[in-house]
Amino acid sequence: MHIAITGAAGFLGQRLVAQLLARGALDGQPIRRLTLLDVAEPPMPAGDGVEITPLALDITEPGGLDPVLATKPDVIYHLAAVVSAAAEVDLALGMRVNFDATRALLEGCHAHGLAGTRLIMASSVAAYGGDLPELVDDMTALQPQNSYGAQKAMSELLINDYSRRGLVDGRVLRLPTIIIRPGRPNAAASSFASSILREPLNGEEAVCPVPTDLSMFVMSPQKVIEALLHGAEVSGDALGPFRAFMLPGITVTVTEMLETLRQVAGDGAVALVRHEPDPRIAAIVSNWPSRFTTRRALELGFRGDGDLREIVDAFLEAKA
Amino acid sequence: MHIAITGAAGFLGQRLVAQLLARGALDGQPIRRLTLLDVAEPPMPAGDGVEITPLALDITEPGGLDPVLATKPDVIYHLAAVVSAAAEVDLALGMRVNFDATRALLEGCHAHGLAGTRLIMASSVAAYGGDLPELVDDMTALQPQNSYGAQKAMSELLINDYSRRGLVDGRVLRLPTIIIRPGRPNAAASSFASSILREPLNGEEAVCPVPTDLSMFVMSPQKVIEALLHGAEVSGDALGPFRAFMLPGITVTVTEMLETLRQVAGDGAVALVRHEPDPRIAAIVSNWPSRFTTRRALELGFRGDGDLREIVDAFLEAKA
Repeated sequence: MHIAITGAAGFLGQRLVAQLLARGALDGQPIRRLTLLDVAEPPMPAGDGVEITPLALDITEPGGLDPVLATKPDVIYHLAAVVSAAAEVDLALGMRVNFDATRALLEGCHAHGLAGTRLIMASSVAAYGGDLPELVDDMTALQPQNSYGAQKAMSELLINDYSRRGLVDGRVLRLPTIIIRPGRPNAAASSFASSILREPLNGEEAVCPVPTDLSMFVMSPQKVIEALLHGAEVSGDALGPFRAFMLPGITVTVTEMLETLRQVAGDGAVALVRHEPDPRIAAIVSNWPSRFTTRRALELGFRGDGDLREIVDAFLEAKA
Repeated sequence: MHIAITGAAGFLGQRLVAQLLARGALDGQPIRRLTLLDVAEPPMPAGDGVEITPLALDITEPGGLDPVLATKPDVIYHLAAVVSAAAEVDLALGMRVNFDATRALLEGCHAHGLAGTRLIMASSVAAYGGDLPELVDDMTALQPQNSYGAQKAMSELLINDYSRRGLVDGRVLRLPTIIIRPGRPNAAASSFASSILREPLNGEEAVCPVPTDLSMFVMSPQKVIEALLHGAEVSGDALGPFRAFMLPGITVTVTEMLETLRQVAGDGAVALVRHEPDPRIAAIVSNWPSRFTTRRALELGFRGDGDLREIVDAFLEAKA
């Protein structure tokens, strides 16, 4: 089994690589080869008996992916993306990375005869928006109110069409907001959702740019990685007529996040969170729905977190 | 008022031009200038006092639209398209005409500062598909099961995003299947829906490639043209958070179409319809939903046909 990963140097990419190497197999097949792609060369992980090739590659360059696709990977994880707030600032950049690169990947799979290759792309809750019902389901329209979501929604349609035509075997997982990301705040509009837990748990200050009654649909990094692995293992036939669906997150409010922080780390930790409204951030994330039925994902065997406390405990455990 | 029309030599384009010239005004403004674009130069209509420029132009060529956009049209009708069955046969052609040209148009509007230009694109019932509910509404997901529908759905997302960003004032009308088109059968998968009425009404044979219990969502050419005109006149603010919606068609079965044909032209006319199942056509059109609530369109003032008989009578009247 040969697996290629775009965005392999990123947060999810690095975790996915570590998990793949720890498991040593995907879909019952031993992993023989990993090709790790990113704009800067991804770090070389330790992996006995696995041929690992980290490559610095601009996947938005015409033909940039050809050398990789010529080696006919069995599974491609397409994780490379320009995140929501950054794509909102720079429309052309977002289009190039979030849409054109997906299209180039699909056209490349077609050109190299990779009909059987399982292509797993990460989409996002940010693809939803507009006049949403109270409870979003698998047949709710994507009417994104941010460019990142629009670019992801377009990529979903293209992956579905290429899959329907039998040119590739695509699967698109719409990710809830991921908490708790490690590291520092980034340009994702949802960055604060990790920050207001992570920084206080590390004894540092954090900024909350949204009202505390804002609710979000969230998933832990651990469950997202499990979903990415499962996304490559689920049968294409089981996916039905559309290859994109929402993963089973859980619904939490900012108030609940702060209350869980209090339970775990006390009043002092909560006091480290400064409330500084940022209308630009609030405008983006308040459009993302927070209540879903995720019947298709659950039927396909995808699993989410139990509750928010479980997410915080997993973060503390990983940190220890 | 300066109006530019892509696909101006086509069936809808020609009717739209005729109606615009007959009315002489759009949104209360006198029409001073019409720019008619198509791959072959559109015919020159008679129009006193209106500066009419027919142009042969490949809108899929980079920069091809620049000379037109530099003249800053107030309204652009984007009707150019590769129809459903043709886009299914040639993926690259469909992507180029149905998606890339839309994108080039949007990027051109942005580059030429046409933020206030009203851009009206024709989308289609073919953008729907998958596990649809019995009754489709304005928040039902687009999960197209044909490449034409996927390309239109992607164009919708892009037009909405450019409009949301204030780069253009886009409006997308999802057209029901249009009956009764004049002329000859074409490469649209729904071509038969006009053919099984038009040919017998002209005393000619027609082929019905689908089961008679198939139901479709249809609209007359007259109502589609009225909708295109109204689409330029409705206020952008009234459109809300998503710029695409389904027009109010009516639901008819093939059986009802043949029965209406019998009422109007007798058993002899119905006998001219040969039933020759074509699984390729049936596979495409059976995925298109036929029952809709079209609340948004109705609230915005769009109007459909009364019933099927009205559609047939209007065809006979136009023919007379």
